[in-house]
Amino acid sequence: MVDIATRVYNHKWKIDPIVRSLIDTDFYKLLMCQSVFRNRPDTNVTFSLINRSKQIRLAELIDEGELREQLDHVRNLSLSRGESTWLRGNMFYGKRQMFRHDFMEFLEGLRLPDYHLEKRDGQYELTFEGKWPEVMLWEVPALAVIMELRSRAVLKDMGRFELQVLYARAMTRLWEKIQTLRKLPDLRIADFGTRRRHSFLWQDWAVQAMIEGLGTGFTGTSNCLVAMRRDIEAIGTNAHELPMVYAALAPDDETLRRAPYDVLADWHEEHEGNLRIILPDTYGTKGFLQRAPDWLAGWTGIRIDSGDPAEGAETAIRWWKERGEDPRDKLVIFSDGLDVDKIVELHQAFHGRVKVSFGWGTLLTNDFRGLVPDNGLSPFSLVCKAVAADGHPTVKLSDNPLKASGPAEEIRRYRRVFSVEDQQERPVVV
Amino acid sequence: MVDIATRVYNHKWKIDPIVRSLIDTDFYKLLMCQSVFRNRPDTNVTFSLINRSKQIRLAELIDEGELREQLDHVRNLSLSRGESTWLRGNMFYGKRQMFRHDFMEFLEGLRLPDYHLEKRDGQYELTFEGKWPEVMLWEVPALAVIMELRSRAVLKDMGRFELQVLYARAMTRLWEKIQTLRKLPDLRIADFGTRRRHSFLWQDWAVQAMIEGLGTGFTGTSNCLVAMRRDIEAIGTNAHELPMVYAALAPDDETLRRAPYDVLADWHEEHEGNLRIILPDTYGTKGFLQRAPDWLAGWTGIRIDSGDPAEGAETAIRWWKERGEDPRDKLVIFSDGLDVDKIVELHQAFHGRVKVSFGWGTLLTNDFRGLVPDNGLSPFSLVCKAVAADGHPTVKLSDNPLKASGPAEEIRRYRRVFSVEDQQERPVVV
Repeated sequence: MVDIATRVYNHKWKIDPIVRSLIDTDFYKLLMCQSVFRNRPDTNVTFSLINRSKQIRLAELIDEGELREQLDHVRNLSLSRGESTWLRGNMFYGKRQMFRHDFMEFLEGLRLPDYHLEKRDGQYELTFEGKWPEVMLWEVPALAVIMELRSRAVLKDMGRFELQVLYARAMTRLWEKIQTLRKLPDLRIADFGTRRRHSFLWQDWAVQAMIEGLGTGFTGTSNCLVAMRRDIEAIGTNAHELPMVYAALAPDDETLRRAPYDVLADWHEEHEGNLRIILPDTYGTKGFLQRAPDWLAGWTGIRIDSGDPAEGAETAIRWWKERGEDPRDKLVIFSDGLDVDKIVELHQAFHGRVKVSFGWGTLLTNDFRGLVPDNGLSPFSLVCKAVAADGHPTVKLSDNPLKASGPAEEIRRYRRVFSVEDQQERPVVV
Repeated sequence: MVDIATRVYNHKWKIDPIVRSLIDTDFYKLLMCQSVFRNRPDTNVTFSLINRSKQIRLAELIDEGELREQLDHVRNLSLSRGESTWLRGNMFYGKRQMFRHDFMEFLEGLRLPDYHLEKRDGQYELTFEGKWPEVMLWEVPALAVIMELRSRAVLKDMGRFELQVLYARAMTRLWEKIQTLRKLPDLRIADFGTRRRHSFLWQDWAVQAMIEGLGTGFTGTSNCLVAMRRDIEAIGTNAHELPMVYAALAPDDETLRRAPYDVLADWHEEHEGNLRIILPDTYGTKGFLQRAPDWLAGWTGIRIDSGDPAEGAETAIRWWKERGEDPRDKLVIFSDGLDVDKIVELHQAFHGRVKVSFGWGTLLTNDFRGLVPDNGLSPFSLVCKAVAADGHPTVKLSDNPLKASGPAEEIRRYRRVFSVEDQQERPVVV
């Protein structure tokens, strides 16, 4: 029987919004936002969309009017009472009231700031400028909007059953991956796939499939809205954004060299346990660990997000041993471009030697490779990064030179300051 | 938003009924029923369930109580006003008012007669006795009920996502078959898969996928309820049941030899055009055609339902030529255990030589082979046949001795009367 009220209500939507909630974002953005709100609330930053896959000509695929409608919709969002209650009342990593009252008041009053959009060379130039704690929350919704508009553009001429079979194939593929993963003993894996997901509903499906297929091996999702709806744990810690902005603000080389540790000192003060996860690769993992203060070796674990992941983990294990720590007590989170084969390989290499965990992103929530002609739905490498802070360009080196960002001159300076030598290039899939 | 009334209404169902309509049956059963109602209304018949796949121990898989509930539900069904209107008003094969007023009144008043059910050797003995026009309508619902109860039994311990992926795989498989079929020029294919379908909803999905995937190449479904709901053509002509009962009633060999033609003489009087389709294999195709009266060669076509299908079609082509008919004006309907490879092969062999058409049954509506452990959902050979008429056993020889049925003594007599010589055995899949 048709529910007339629901149908009439649905007719009132002018668009089919992609992002429908301010907490349809990664948990770590909120954690970092609170840290920034406390420590650097007045820093001005610029975030910018960067499509590293130039062959995907987004401005030809996605209608500018539709993109503006979706972005405008995101600007109209505000925290709902239920979302606020969930954030205030939830227990994250065993800790209650992770978000302080002043931060929650800020978040409850927040609307995202304006954006600047233009087309150039078949791509969209999309930038956000303003106070760091506000602008930073654009990153994930901006990416999710563009990814899903691209999916819609590719799917728009397909028939109803063609679509159903497309999703049937994608479901089968994901389920087969899950069947492979469930064989791994003591597997711990989370969904990190919000930003480059095929669509919101597909991410939600993927999460539910992981819940049924992996049981307690599935530790949660980075997406707060999905975590709230599916009653599972919201997962995440911190990202390159923090050291990149702290570094950009450093007035001289000496302060710059200290910046990655300063940012973690602020974090150390605010968080404990599972939130004390080192992300060492922003300016090269090797040097970062060598120069690290001893208190960092006491942190819970490390997240490996670029370079050869096995090599990164071995480096961390050696470092912990040098600092007198038992690696078996330490958590290693792999999160760079994972798919099942790589997960199995890393699990076999490190299970028992350290506590292993996986943050599975794009190839969990957006693996439609080969399912439409010309690979039109393959994931691609789209990011939205802080490119400037108080007028200074930001720089990222990472353990893979193909993932480096910033002006060439500044990259050279950072490589000198952080003593980064030759690095191996690795293809960037997502 | 939950529609409370719908939810409360749904709570009232004591069971989830498999067959919910008297017209959830094959169109040809209604056509034959009308013929029987007119010509042999008082014949007493016995229909009996026969599981030719003994390794499937149905009585161990299916709960007897559940089976009785489903069969009792079928006995409570009566023609709804909308169904009656559709049967009375529809145009079948271009002809209006195919069903006469007296037959419609009979049908509107009909409730299916009682059944007899007991367990023996891990199988169900299920029989129906009574007037032919009533009992004959049990065949399709009885089979559909048992097939779907078997599906439910196999699926009952699977998780929600496991189930979704199971259907995702089945959908993908079917869609790939349809993609292969759509390449065949001038393909004409119909759904004949009601009786051994996986489930009603799955048949309905399969039909909709055929509509989208094949367009006008999909000519309709044998299922009246699906045809009505999906607004497509109901398809079918006649079956072995007619000559088998006519033959059983024959008092002597001479009448027996004439019986297969007598039944078609009745049919000839009642129907024209696409309903004049010869089903020649009941007592051997070769002899049937040799002895056939000339007016039969004027019929629209032939249905090949056992034996080697290409050989059967060649036999028909030679026969038409001998009788001065142009085979290119004749319709050959293949309907025996078809799957895509066989359809492609037969289409290539006969397209252009005759009008080719396919009645695709079990492997359209029930191909879950290999999708659960131990092939638990593979289709199997279940039939429900007239086994006696006015106390005389019925006999079927067919062009495949493995499909023969009846007492051995009677089979010998029929083979003599119809001059059936050596036949080649072919494995019976469905």
